Amino acid sequence: MLFAKPLAELIAQLEKLPGVGPKSAQRLAYHILRLPDDEVRALAASLLHAKESLRLCESCQNISQEVRCEICSDTRRDPHVLCVVGEPRDIAAIERLNQFKGLYHVLHGLLSPMEGIGPEQLKVRELIHRLRDNVSEVILATNPTIEGDTTALYLAKLIKPIGIKVTRLAHGMPVGGELDYADSATLLSALEYRREI
Amino acid sequence: MLFAKPLAELIAQLEKLPGVGPKSAQRLAYHILRLPDDEVRALAASLLHAKESLRLCESCQNISQEVRCEICSDTRRDPHVLCVVGEPRDIAAIERLNQFKGLYHVLHGLLSPMEGIGPEQLKVRELIHRLRDNVSEVILATNPTIEGDTTALYLAKLIKPIGIKVTRLAHGMPVGGELDYADSATLLSALEYRREI
Repeated sequence: MLFAKPLAELIAQLEKLPGVGPKSAQRLAYHILRLPDDEVRALAASLLHAKESLRLCESCQNISQEVRCEICSDTRRDPHVLCVVGEPRDIAAIERLNQFKGLYHVLHGLLSPMEGIGPEQLKVRELIHRLRDNVSEVILATNPTIEGDTTALYLAKLIKPIGIKVTRLAHGMPVGGELDYADSATLLSALEYRREI
Repeated sequence: MLFAKPLAELIAQLEKLPGVGPKSAQRLAYHILRLPDDEVRALAASLLHAKESLRLCESCQNISQEVRCEICSDTRRDPHVLCVVGEPRDIAAIERLNQFKGLYHVLHGLLSPMEGIGPEQLKVRELIHRLRDNVSEVILATNPTIEGDTTALYLAKLIKPIGIKVTRLAHGMPVGGELDYADSATLLSALEYRREI
């Protein structure tokens, strides 16, 4: 036996986390054993508290403490523009810009026939349901990947016939990037999305 | 507010762990929220259980569930040879070899004047105390770093006058390495430690 049983159990639990291999699970476990008692209790409590007290916002499906999340409850925001993202973490990325003042909709995944993820596994029905509420534009902000593009295309086909404007985040050169190093798919997109200056 | 409060708290707790930056703390937190309730409870319980039920072995200072650890309690092992390591995790590395049959001693750190770590911060007194019990050899298996070498030198000076054999793990080329890529300190050590074949 390399490790005392409770230590082996802790390592096994930590190894289940994404991006934590056997080696880093061991390092984390030894680190945790060296922490003061109250810090370990605080970590354990925050795990349980987050899991117990958080739910999905009934409107946008973002992670929320209340029935409706803070963004959906904010009356200063424009409810006529919906920004559709794949994951809750994508909202943080856009909110950090301090630019978008509409509301969000989280799909909780992207279409992936390879992994058997169809529209019914995503929060698509909930999105369509929200479109009745006077929505004037849907911005499709799914990742610029095969799954993200497939999802955007699928949603566009679904939403445009209703008569709502559908837009997609631009693909193009990342700011500060070099043409020489850009992959050809990105460069091709940058060319397609070109704009008069 | 980018995150609901319990989520922000969980992210803050996870960020304190070594090797977990803001980005991976977010990814871990979202992953944890997607886990089934009982898996999160199992993770939290293993944190608390490990912290509460583990202590240091009174003899070798390794992490242990009992007053004396499994290795020190194993009567088939040779109590006359002590292998001195910096951290508990180093024991696992040596045990995996299935070669060493003596006992260990964990210093819980290495000498580092830069960080103000002197012999009194390490389990040195406990080591010297154990040497009374008929120890014939002390193998210094601290890391081949400045701190590890300093610690080994310090212990050698302390132990050799007692009349106990003191050895140090060999420095040299890692197996499978290429001369061309070896740093000169390693190559120099390999030359010094050369052996007739």
